[in-house]
Amino acid sequence: MIVVETVKEMQQLSKKLKSQEKSIGFVPTMGYLHEGHLSLVEAAKKKDDVVVMSIFVNPTQFGPNEDFDSYPRDFERDKKLAEEHGVDVLFYPSVEEIYPDELTTKIHVVKRTDVLCGKSRPGHFDGVATVLFKLFHIVLPDNAYFGMKDAQQVAVIDGFMKDYFFPINLVTCPTVREHDGLAKSSRNVNLTKEERQEAPMIYKQLLFAKELVESGERDANKLRNVLFDKLSASITGKIDYIDILSYPSLTEIEKLNGQVIIAVAVRYSKVRLIDNIILTI
Amino acid sequence: MIVVETVKEMQQLSKKLKSQEKSIGFVPTMGYLHEGHLSLVEAAKKKDDVVVMSIFVNPTQFGPNEDFDSYPRDFERDKKLAEEHGVDVLFYPSVEEIYPDELTTKIHVVKRTDVLCGKSRPGHFDGVATVLFKLFHIVLPDNAYFGMKDAQQVAVIDGFMKDYFFPINLVTCPTVREHDGLAKSSRNVNLTKEERQEAPMIYKQLLFAKELVESGERDANKLRNVLFDKLSASITGKIDYIDILSYPSLTEIEKLNGQVIIAVAVRYSKVRLIDNIILTI
Repeated sequence: MIVVETVKEMQQLSKKLKSQEKSIGFVPTMGYLHEGHLSLVEAAKKKDDVVVMSIFVNPTQFGPNEDFDSYPRDFERDKKLAEEHGVDVLFYPSVEEIYPDELTTKIHVVKRTDVLCGKSRPGHFDGVATVLFKLFHIVLPDNAYFGMKDAQQVAVIDGFMKDYFFPINLVTCPTVREHDGLAKSSRNVNLTKEERQEAPMIYKQLLFAKELVESGERDANKLRNVLFDKLSASITGKIDYIDILSYPSLTEIEKLNGQVIIAVAVRYSKVRLIDNIILTI
Repeated sequence: MIVVETVKEMQQLSKKLKSQEKSIGFVPTMGYLHEGHLSLVEAAKKKDDVVVMSIFVNPTQFGPNEDFDSYPRDFERDKKLAEEHGVDVLFYPSVEEIYPDELTTKIHVVKRTDVLCGKSRPGHFDGVATVLFKLFHIVLPDNAYFGMKDAQQVAVIDGFMKDYFFPINLVTCPTVREHDGLAKSSRNVNLTKEERQEAPMIYKQLLFAKELVESGERDANKLRNVLFDKLSASITGKIDYIDILSYPSLTEIEKLNGQVIIAVAVRYSKVRLIDNIILTI
């Protein structure tokens, strides 16, 4: 595995790989790797000749009161994990490397952002899109891999990749979970012991909602209310939202139909957890 | 020469050319070709293996009261000219092909736009950037060619290409002129006979300003005033602006220093003409 720290070197390497007709699989991350990230690497290993992983905690996707500074970082551990799992190129740029100058041109996501996490994180998806426009042009992947845990992120990426005809395949992988069902997240380390113990209830209640749908429930509002009551009763964390929307357009629905997301966010003392399931009706 | 009308076909062709290690030179145009465009083709022929020209009158870069409908179009003539001058691929998509759905994500140029033409054409450069983000991802060029007549456009493109690390060289070519000095433009056909006769004075007075700079004038305001007086006295068209700015940042200057643009726009009955010179001091 080679570690590349500059934009110029990374872009030159990618151009060289492309001229050799090697397909590039790209796994963008903010580091502090867990099995979720590594499942994306595994998928890329199967499909692509060369797997590039980036580790970059992107400042522009954190709000002023968010956890940019406390976001967990451990490069040496990540490097070891990446190498063990067969990453070929680890792109590890500094903030100055990715944001050398003030932007002359801004990217603004105008759809799919006024719901779910976007509602409480204004500008978050502008930051995600901005850094991915940059990273995609640097790494020049054939396939880019994202986990469905961040389903709204995937919907936003799907949107701008179609808008601007990025010559890249968006490959999504299922959420990887702990044995008790809690969705893997770099932020889970910031849960207290008690919070960690109850957190699996989030997924458990999502599965309960799924069962209701499978038994014929189609009323989005009714389903939402039942899920809200069940979840509030089973956790101490504060429910930030429970939403049932069309996917990937993330538009409001009354009746469940087509592809639908049931998404939840719960706020704990130091961390906010998200989870979702996507159903096809 | 082949004519390609769909995004999918064009992108597939470009990917194939790249896998064959052919370099792609791209000349984006709005058609109604003149020697200015053809000089870009000539430059691309010298540098690249394959020359792709696009002809697309981009609706998003025209304001509601601008000349989108009256913008001159003649595809059969353009096709003949492109073929005669050695264009290999003519990309001629419909508006529906380039803008199939409402955008989920918008591009907004925030610098280099509050001066010159940008001041009187709000949103114009957002439209230019939007279509070029799309076209660059469809055509996947190694080199993209633009004429210096649209110097502000070149400054904006230079800005966003650096911001987002587009893996593309920006190649600029000098303004091509009529024998009497008038900058070639597709819009010149909309001048009346009298307007056409006096229009070369714009460039003549720019050359006069250049002489003043060469004789030692460094005061931007003084130079601007002299140029304004000389030009107003020699044409009936209304001067929209005369600006002297640092280039390509397009920031205000008091003293001429480094790379500087002197740019003029003149409004005639049915058309607005622009011209500029860039000096290095």
